[in-house]
Amino acid sequence: MPIQAISWSPSGAVRIIDQRALPEAEITRDLESAESVAEAIKQMQVRGAPLIGIAAAMGLVAGTRDLRSAPRPSFLAGVDARPTAVNLRWALHRMANVAQSTLGESPAIWERLHVEATAIWEEDRAMCRRIGEHGLTILADGANVLTHCNTGALATGGIGTALAPIYLAHEQGRRVHVYVDETRPLLQGSRLTTWELQHAGVPCTLITDGAAATLMRQAKIDVILVGADRICANGDFANKIGTYGLAVLARHHGVPFYCAAPWSTVDASLADGDLIPIEQRAAAEVTVMAGRPIAPDGVVALNPAFDVTPARYVTGFITDRGIVQPPFSAT
Amino acid sequence: MPIQAISWSPSGAVRIIDQRALPEAEITRDLESAESVAEAIKQMQVRGAPLIGIAAAMGLVAGTRDLRSAPRPSFLAGVDARPTAVNLRWALHRMANVAQSTLGESPAIWERLHVEATAIWEEDRAMCRRIGEHGLTILADGANVLTHCNTGALATGGIGTALAPIYLAHEQGRRVHVYVDETRPLLQGSRLTTWELQHAGVPCTLITDGAAATLMRQAKIDVILVGADRICANGDFANKIGTYGLAVLARHHGVPFYCAAPWSTVDASLADGDLIPIEQRAAAEVTVMAGRPIAPDGVVALNPAFDVTPARYVTGFITDRGIVQPPFSAT
Repeated sequence: MPIQAISWSPSGAVRIIDQRALPEAEITRDLESAESVAEAIKQMQVRGAPLIGIAAAMGLVAGTRDLRSAPRPSFLAGVDARPTAVNLRWALHRMANVAQSTLGESPAIWERLHVEATAIWEEDRAMCRRIGEHGLTILADGANVLTHCNTGALATGGIGTALAPIYLAHEQGRRVHVYVDETRPLLQGSRLTTWELQHAGVPCTLITDGAAATLMRQAKIDVILVGADRICANGDFANKIGTYGLAVLARHHGVPFYCAAPWSTVDASLADGDLIPIEQRAAAEVTVMAGRPIAPDGVVALNPAFDVTPARYVTGFITDRGIVQPPFSAT
Repeated sequence: MPIQAISWSPSGAVRIIDQRALPEAEITRDLESAESVAEAIKQMQVRGAPLIGIAAAMGLVAGTRDLRSAPRPSFLAGVDARPTAVNLRWALHRMANVAQSTLGESPAIWERLHVEATAIWEEDRAMCRRIGEHGLTILADGANVLTHCNTGALATGGIGTALAPIYLAHEQGRRVHVYVDETRPLLQGSRLTTWELQHAGVPCTLITDGAAATLMRQAKIDVILVGADRICANGDFANKIGTYGLAVLARHHGVPFYCAAPWSTVDASLADGDLIPIEQRAAAEVTVMAGRPIAPDGVVALNPAFDVTPARYVTGFITDRGIVQPPFSAT
């Protein structure tokens, strides 16, 4: 069984697995406020676009418990959205809209928000399952899949996005084997994806990012499945750094390349990938490993968190609405 | 000035920099025998095809000092070649031939071997310089070069192979900037290449291996320069894992892709790259970092040390004989 990355604690806090500590230690944390959820997201204790949306909504609920005794305007002021990843924004806007449109006093609004956050989570679980079902068609018995970063149970409220078809295929008894890119610099592949695949009993082999090309040349990869952090109207999409290179290599070697993501990842306000802002993260993520320097003092390192893959490299987008092709509109 | 990776110690031992400790510590070791050199090569204290050839020849000299009092047949029996990297074999065969063809008793043979080992080193220094001079033509003022692994002063007896043109361009006052692939799993790029470029004052920027494709797409790379561990008669060549992917990406983005290597790297006995045996190294190089696990216990990891790049992806081979094209013959 895939693991469960998020839940309500018995006391009503947001219970997460601290993903920074994996695979060495399995530490759960109970987050009591929107701020602590935001901090956990910032520190990447919680990561994956769908999961941070759920965590943000749940954190809003946990953090406004104490405002239930406040008057309605104060309560509503406490329900405030901050702009970041598209799923986080989407989830918090949805929560803010629910709060505004709920009649009555603070306790009633809070109850409604609690229901809404749980609904966001449940919808995500169902969404993962639908992505899995649609994606099943591309996984023949015996398939060797290459994936990048972590787009599984640890990135969502359910069984993942790009890993969902793999979990369902495995569940149905199809033989499926996953090559996992370690995904430098933060090693989500080696630390998280292999961990959750192992947990679920899905056979996998870890490789360095630089080894993927040779496996394609050796015809050892039948299909590539990656996630997405944001998909533009024309189908260009942002995902973990390294994705674009895989897409080009897949095209060159005739390997089908699929992007699996919830429909909510589509940001139709962006016409194309040139408009996606790319987060530049700290150089230390590249130059320090497990507390030890792996590069000389003072070296300049470039650390873009994401890259943009043009739509023309994508065989299909596996979404909860089916396997679709751009252009995409908001509805 | 580029650093000097090998020398004779005052007492006649082989003085090396322990490259495993870089960049945290600069540790020199004096190796007293062929066995200790072989062990240092195995542990990758010494690495880089040209440097291990020099180290092997020098180690043979250091290790046969005590045999000078032995009779000629015993001395010659102590001069024994073991097959490994093509440069190591080449250097040891050369030493063995010199030993066999030198008249006289053990002390005279030993003196001749000492001269020969120093000559191998000096020839390597000159070879590096010639590669640099031939390669200068491809580096315009202001060039941005991408390189992979370490093919510099730490891999040779001189100023390197793929880094030699960069060092000479810098020496001549041309502005040249190097993007350095970190080169997982052993991080020769982040640990060694940035260290020696920094030492020589050459501007460089460290990136993860997965970021190279996006830099090419953004037209930030003017030329790619990599080394080679073995070059076949048809021009297919083996180099550090990740090289093949760069070659495909370079072709896709119209970036010139050069392989720089000494002519001695050509192994004309191999018709093509399918015949190159690929060393599979320990999974722990991928799953453990700085002594800490970065993947779950028991995960399977694939760790090929090299990949093979077909000749058709190579713009040119920068050798000590000039920029050449296959096919190559032994002479």
